[in-house]
Amino acid sequence: MDEFDIIRRFFAGRAGKRGDVALGIGDDAALLRVPAGHELAVSTDSLVAGVHFPADLPADAVGHRALASNLSDLAAMGATPAWVVMALTLPEPDEAWLQGFSDGFFALAKQHEVALVGGNMARGPLNVTLTVHGHVPEGRALTRSGAQVGDLVYVTGHPGDAAAGLKLLKSGEARMQHPCVRRFAYPEPRIVEGQALRGLASAAIDVSDGLLADLGHLLEARGFGAKLALEKLPVSRELLALHGQDDARKLALTGGDDYELCFTVHPAQAAAAEVRLVQTGCPAACIGAIESTPGLHCVDRSGRTHEYFRSGHRHF
Amino acid sequence: MDEFDIIRRFFAGRAGKRGDVALGIGDDAALLRVPAGHELAVSTDSLVAGVHFPADLPADAVGHRALASNLSDLAAMGATPAWVVMALTLPEPDEAWLQGFSDGFFALAKQHEVALVGGNMARGPLNVTLTVHGHVPEGRALTRSGAQVGDLVYVTGHPGDAAAGLKLLKSGEARMQHPCVRRFAYPEPRIVEGQALRGLASAAIDVSDGLLADLGHLLEARGFGAKLALEKLPVSRELLALHGQDDARKLALTGGDDYELCFTVHPAQAAAAEVRLVQTGCPAACIGAIESTPGLHCVDRSGRTHEYFRSGHRHF
Repeated sequence: MDEFDIIRRFFAGRAGKRGDVALGIGDDAALLRVPAGHELAVSTDSLVAGVHFPADLPADAVGHRALASNLSDLAAMGATPAWVVMALTLPEPDEAWLQGFSDGFFALAKQHEVALVGGNMARGPLNVTLTVHGHVPEGRALTRSGAQVGDLVYVTGHPGDAAAGLKLLKSGEARMQHPCVRRFAYPEPRIVEGQALRGLASAAIDVSDGLLADLGHLLEARGFGAKLALEKLPVSRELLALHGQDDARKLALTGGDDYELCFTVHPAQAAAAEVRLVQTGCPAACIGAIESTPGLHCVDRSGRTHEYFRSGHRHF
Repeated sequence: MDEFDIIRRFFAGRAGKRGDVALGIGDDAALLRVPAGHELAVSTDSLVAGVHFPADLPADAVGHRALASNLSDLAAMGATPAWVVMALTLPEPDEAWLQGFSDGFFALAKQHEVALVGGNMARGPLNVTLTVHGHVPEGRALTRSGAQVGDLVYVTGHPGDAAAGLKLLKSGEARMQHPCVRRFAYPEPRIVEGQALRGLASAAIDVSDGLLADLGHLLEARGFGAKLALEKLPVSRELLALHGQDDARKLALTGGDDYELCFTVHPAQAAAAEVRLVQTGCPAACIGAIESTPGLHCVDRSGRTHEYFRSGHRHF
């Protein structure tokens, strides 16, 4: 089985059809049509075995997560996904692994109507690098830099679940059905939610490195700080059951891999943003507000400030 | 030095400015503007240490080659390069290596006015995956599928030099100044030449896996074959000096990594195509013609057919 067999058997025939693909897999480059009046949104992300996921993670979860983490970046821009290219480096052509990987990848691709339009295959240590492409009406993208002092800080879903799931996986108890494990293995990018927030959120970022770390990036873009109310953190029942309140909060603030959205909203737009998110079916919690003083202050019900090590995941 | 330091120090400030970049490095995705009436051309390619290049290749050559091999795909489409995103996986943050790598990368990026608009950095075995983006007037791209029976087959430059250079490198004689070594380490993507061939070439492909292998892809797209005249192969003086005529021809036909263009032209357009290429300063040789019978026939001056193992580089 050489690279061309692999491409034919597992990828080319399942790539997905879109009217805006003039030329897909099989030439030197794909040819694509961005709709008039729209900007192209592009993001790239790698998954490395043993670094971003345990080497024994089921192959369909690797395929799902690789695409989900990339789509999550488009979600944070409020972009509509369209196309993806895949650079796959594999130690050897393992048919069962390729079947699972491509199944997981294409199931999510289909859900978001993303077409695979090209790729590259090489032999080497397992590395999945995807580059996703979407579009957004000109000037309407959500960015990291629009937050203002007084804006409210929101987060979607239940941050911390994925980190708890990864801990379970690493502990060797391979309970793939546990909700937290599923949240790590099969995260759902908040594509619809990102689009719903266009024109309402003042800034947005996806939570990949941990809520405090990623909110920190958003604040650094303006030199601002934020005060967060610990009791408002949307800690899931499952996370609480696994870790108790203190550690659950810590994981919610510092655990990575959630692929939730953290965003800011001017108070006058808060009701409208909350209604839009309810319409998408996505839970979202207001957890604090932007302040002019740099720094992140996490305050409990009694007014006491707690210190957390900010980053759940430093890449070096 | 964490990933953010690396990005700041070696990449962000040198990314290159373009008026069509609405948002570059530093957000969840880049926002880019494709010119009206143009298609977006996208290609992705990985370089893996020890697979695509010797692990001790100078870092600036790794940076150059990574971008060159990607730009070569845009060249084969006749596209104008514009933007690139970089997924860099590194075993450790080695400052000297990063300096060399980024120097090599940006020197070539500047030459072709390509802006680095985003990326990802991860820890792991060395892997450089780039996704390049360009544009081409709608319907004017060169593709692999347009060749007709009777079209002439051309190749630019001197195929085989890069493979000879790689042999020299692997032999341990690190003569980086040897012309063949330089052709492997610092290939020049044929961007100007690809654009010059728009409207004249009937099909094009870049020579990355070897001339016969890549011409084979172009022929397979139509179910055609080709007859090549061995004495017309543009074998360089340096290649001839290193390997003698027989082996030099073999390397020219089967050696990879040249990043030359192989293209086909209707005989009525041949003079015009040759003039255009002379204007770019690029040597190009007519080496044969397309036939309706599948298969590649390499014929010497006496009319005898020679057999070559087609593929210089199978990825698995």
